Amino acid sequence: MASYSSEERAGVYRAIRERRDVRSGFSPDALPQELLLRLLASAHQAPSVGLMQPWRFVVIQSRAIREKVFDIFQDASSQEHKTYAGERAELYSRLTLQGILTAPLNLCVVCDDESSQGHSLGRHTMPETALYSAVCAIQNLWLAARAEGVGLGWVSILDTERVKSVLNVPPAMKFVGYFCMGFVESFAAEPELERVGWERRLRLEDVLRSETFDQPWGALQP
Amino acid sequence: MASYSSEERAGVYRAIRERRDVRSGFSPDALPQELLLRLLASAHQAPSVGLMQPWRFVVIQSRAIREKVFDIFQDASSQEHKTYAGERAELYSRLTLQGILTAPLNLCVVCDDESSQGHSLGRHTMPETALYSAVCAIQNLWLAARAEGVGLGWVSILDTERVKSVLNVPPAMKFVGYFCMGFVESFAAEPELERVGWERRLRLEDVLRSETFDQPWGALQP
Repeated sequence: MASYSSEERAGVYRAIRERRDVRSGFSPDALPQELLLRLLASAHQAPSVGLMQPWRFVVIQSRAIREKVFDIFQDASSQEHKTYAGERAELYSRLTLQGILTAPLNLCVVCDDESSQGHSLGRHTMPETALYSAVCAIQNLWLAARAEGVGLGWVSILDTERVKSVLNVPPAMKFVGYFCMGFVESFAAEPELERVGWERRLRLEDVLRSETFDQPWGALQP
Repeated sequence: MASYSSEERAGVYRAIRERRDVRSGFSPDALPQELLLRLLASAHQAPSVGLMQPWRFVVIQSRAIREKVFDIFQDASSQEHKTYAGERAELYSRLTLQGILTAPLNLCVVCDDESSQGHSLGRHTMPETALYSAVCAIQNLWLAARAEGVGLGWVSILDTERVKSVLNVPPAMKFVGYFCMGFVESFAAEPELERVGWERRLRLEDVLRSETFDQPWGALQP
């Protein structure tokens, strides 16, 4: 198997670097079905514990369903807003936290946590790896979408039980994430939360440790 | 911002398609530090709720530490083995479930779940998104590693509390995953679990739904 050309490799790094959480600027145009299936196929190629493949993707175009989810967002967001005070509350009101109605497509990812697929391999010790497999699928989708000029935004300010009810998701299925998705003209150079001053990016050294958690990076490096 | 060249885009799809869970065939050679940092920087570019960046990476080269983790794996795996009977128990004993000592590098990813970074944005409703952010970072790492000819394997058959103790990880930090990592000569064409007959891959249609969970894919498609 040939190694990757420098341009193929650069493509991988570029998608990782330029991926953004996109919640505005969507084109109203629907994604061509072929493109949508190519993106979902990339998600479906994610790693999964025991080859369990527990991810299930609900593709939502219906305006009526999206309006119900939008209402759920508004309730949750007005609750969250109240937890902030002063300058940060003001900053909160300026954030773009969803694109449920402006994106042509929504996606709900749930995890079939009780599937017998995979025969429980690896889940005796770490049952949470079923959910993690579904999250790996989401990240695949995010990167493939970026390379195709498709924006994807994770909407986490939702009462997930209410969303499950709107989408007829059985109780045993675990909610993983809700997304808005569509073509965008451009992707921001930096995360919105950084741009508006909500939070800054950490340096790489800040998140690295050597050998054990209590040893900072560099302690053992030459 | 220019759109992606067909080769850049192909690189993204290729890494997603050819990524494997690698637990054998490692070269004993250490990864050059520059390459290791490039891969970890890709992980650090993952999306995170509220720009929380809760991932923490413990890079482990020490043989003594890896031997302790290997012991923890052996205990957990012999427990798991006992849950299978007959043909499947025999199949289990043929699986390669870790490369802790044969890979030159191990990596433990933990999540600083109580970090004030991100100011709790999005976590009032979905506190689990901190952990999910760390999983997105892992998938970034996996894909960048694939493009560089570096194999990564997720070892989930571990008593995670014991691993935390060996690595001096404070109780408040959440264990996310443990990995073996190193150069490999080649990547398998198919997942090992598929090759040996542990599990088969699902078709894409099997994991897709239209509009609501109870409507199969295609029900509403033209």
